Amino acid sequence: MCQPEPALPPLPAALRAHLRDDAARYRDDAAGTPGAAPRGVLAPRSAEEAAEILCLLQEAGLAAVVQGGRTGLSGGARVQPGELVLSTERLTAPPRIDAVAGTMTVGAGVVLEAAQQAARAAGLYLAADLGARGSATLGGMAATNAGGPLALRYGTFRQQVLGVEGVLPDGTIVRRLGGLYKDNSGLDLSQYLVGSEGILGLVTRLVLRLHPAPAARRVAVCALDGAAEALALLPALRAGLGPDLQACELMIDPLLAETCAARGLRSPFAEPAPAVLLLEVAGTDPEACGARLEAVLETALEAGRIRDAVLSASEADCLRLWGLREGCSQFLFQNVGPITSLDLSLPLAAIPAFLAEAEGLCAGRARPYVFGHLGDGNLHYVLACPPDAAPTDEIFALTARHGGAITAEHGIGADKLRWLPLCRDAAEIAAMARLKRAVDPGWILNPGRILPRPFPQTPEARP
Amino acid sequence: MCQPEPALPPLPAALRAHLRDDAARYRDDAAGTPGAAPRGVLAPRSAEEAAEILCLLQEAGLAAVVQGGRTGLSGGARVQPGELVLSTERLTAPPRIDAVAGTMTVGAGVVLEAAQQAARAAGLYLAADLGARGSATLGGMAATNAGGPLALRYGTFRQQVLGVEGVLPDGTIVRRLGGLYKDNSGLDLSQYLVGSEGILGLVTRLVLRLHPAPAARRVAVCALDGAAEALALLPALRAGLGPDLQACELMIDPLLAETCAARGLRSPFAEPAPAVLLLEVAGTDPEACGARLEAVLETALEAGRIRDAVLSASEADCLRLWGLREGCSQFLFQNVGPITSLDLSLPLAAIPAFLAEAEGLCAGRARPYVFGHLGDGNLHYVLACPPDAAPTDEIFALTARHGGAITAEHGIGADKLRWLPLCRDAAEIAAMARLKRAVDPGWILNPGRILPRPFPQTPEARP
Repeated sequence: MCQPEPALPPLPAALRAHLRDDAARYRDDAAGTPGAAPRGVLAPRSAEEAAEILCLLQEAGLAAVVQGGRTGLSGGARVQPGELVLSTERLTAPPRIDAVAGTMTVGAGVVLEAAQQAARAAGLYLAADLGARGSATLGGMAATNAGGPLALRYGTFRQQVLGVEGVLPDGTIVRRLGGLYKDNSGLDLSQYLVGSEGILGLVTRLVLRLHPAPAARRVAVCALDGAAEALALLPALRAGLGPDLQACELMIDPLLAETCAARGLRSPFAEPAPAVLLLEVAGTDPEACGARLEAVLETALEAGRIRDAVLSASEADCLRLWGLREGCSQFLFQNVGPITSLDLSLPLAAIPAFLAEAEGLCAGRARPYVFGHLGDGNLHYVLACPPDAAPTDEIFALTARHGGAITAEHGIGADKLRWLPLCRDAAEIAAMARLKRAVDPGWILNPGRILPRPFPQTPEARP
Repeated sequence: MCQPEPALPPLPAALRAHLRDDAARYRDDAAGTPGAAPRGVLAPRSAEEAAEILCLLQEAGLAAVVQGGRTGLSGGARVQPGELVLSTERLTAPPRIDAVAGTMTVGAGVVLEAAQQAARAAGLYLAADLGARGSATLGGMAATNAGGPLALRYGTFRQQVLGVEGVLPDGTIVRRLGGLYKDNSGLDLSQYLVGSEGILGLVTRLVLRLHPAPAARRVAVCALDGAAEALALLPALRAGLGPDLQACELMIDPLLAETCAARGLRSPFAEPAPAVLLLEVAGTDPEACGARLEAVLETALEAGRIRDAVLSASEADCLRLWGLREGCSQFLFQNVGPITSLDLSLPLAAIPAFLAEAEGLCAGRARPYVFGHLGDGNLHYVLACPPDAAPTDEIFALTARHGGAITAEHGIGADKLRWLPLCRDAAEIAAMARLKRAVDPGWILNPGRILPRPFPQTPEARP
């Protein structure tokens, strides 16, 4: 670590031809820490142009960070000193739908909501959703293997990706745009890019799998005695609702009560419950769909397994009930002061013990608010305090002790790098670095994300 | 290619301690070409023992091939001269089910059918099936990203794998056994092993995702005017059946008629149809499920889009109708003389044109039999002739011209290596080789599968 700092290499003339103006606007960061001013912004219009740029960067030893919608919450797209930005903002080929195959081909810079709407207009369904749907790009969702509530039924974004066109950091163009549901011809390099947070390459285009659109949905919220009781309900929900169960979201007291008070929402229950579960079912038959949900909840009520339940009678009700869940996120980001948002993945059975122990760790330091995707073990554990005051070390260590992961859907990015060894051992991290080096000999693309830099680049950039 | 052949390195003493007897029984090959006699058989009982073995192999420069159930159809597990066998037959930790999380943890050497039964006994559903269910192992299914009819609804085996324990060829142990639905902490090395056909490592244990068990299924077979008409029906099937549509299998005349004649099965239709489609729906509600299928078929019949349809009235009917589809495979492997079985993946829209052109290529050379998973574009194109007489070059080239892949679910293995450049360009194949080298410096695990050997090992082993 005491090597002399190399000076930043100059930008070669061939690269300057690709630069965009107004670099300052690429400094925004959803996680709240503005990035450095980029040395320049590169926004290729095609995989070929991206490959040309990456070859120039390799040759000159210049680092770049990939940016999509900049909605990531782990600082993966935040500019670090000395970096150029490689933006997907011009990779905006609009969604092209193949209704017979049930697929969509689309540019990496297209926003999720536009893709959802295009699928719906064709009578199909893109089974991916998240709060930032209006600004998150599909390329970024692939690169970070985005999650969200629908992952319970349909899997994470990885499962929606049939193939990508992308560019490895060494300039190799990868192409799997045939829209093939099954293709075992060679290592699936497009799946290698999914979830690699840009360290193995840039996604330029995608083919996504579309599902048949469910004809109807019903939503219910249930009041329960606690998280353990919510978990205990899961087998009955699976058995009773079968594959139609598509969301199972948990909110732990006092989050919902405070959200309702702060945002003027009407609480569905007369008095706050220790835990509230939001359930969504969607199927081919509107009546059958609702009748089964009703039956399952009735049985649970009679058995005293839930305290109370409210069931949607209309699509307006569905939206209103989801509004409670989405209101919780808005409350935390807008009404609570500085927060530290941890995105934990836990073995389901460990959740009650985890919650009890975590509360002990927070006592007297930060108030915890807990919500998330109970059905897939993904808890958003939000502490009402700034990151430097949060017991993050302790909560992450506790998560790891319970066999969980320190990030379920937000990724490691730049901000969680030092905790990765809690989940992955040194040999695994070394193997990741060998795979990275195999396609990025100059270690130029998204350095310092997921893996520590192999060598210091600038004084500020060192971990 | 004119370098002197290196002599085979001797087996080190430490490795000899791991060897098993009766090596000859590892020569079987489902694709029909018996392998060489292995130099020895290694059957580790744990990831740790596998890692120890792989380190010894690396050190000594000895090649080994991974074997599971030896049901692969591309020769990936067939022993090549000079190789040792690395068998998963002792990695048989029985299925352990977590009913709350909906997951199964199981040894890589366990057979698919045992896992299906264990899931069913717990009221859950392992959404993977294939003809070789009685002998294919779960480790092999992960390594080859197995397909099958259920992939239409649930995705390929990749989508069932929440994580694996495995060993990279350099001895690195990879562990993702937490059963987490979402885990973005670092590159997902377990997904890297899926579909790598053993060249990037050995799978020793898996955590599989289980689905809620559908309460009921209905099956129908429909007679149609041809493949184009079958394809044209797909959007109506998706719209009418929604997410309950879980299989959509095609059989093209004369396959079904000859199968019925040869195997004493009763044809469902009075006269042979140019194309027959088998549909399966499965949902939460037995009655609604069948009623919708009935309605969709009625509409199609009235519109003249299908000629005739037979609908199951009982589970026995379901089995009988599936028996027709499975009878086709048995007919081809047991009643037709030597065959060449090609496993093609095609963009759905290209299928009718492909079929017409392929028939032209076969004319006067080999009789083609066609069936497969129409809903996901996977056709099994079977030629009634031995491989050396089959127009494989031409059919594969035609597949590639239509944007298809030369293998949908069987993989490249050793047998399709020379055709890989039809689907993947030289730069992509070179990138695969760099990734392989990054974790297998001695190129010792499954050499000559997917990728050509980087150096000749024995005279017989050269392509």
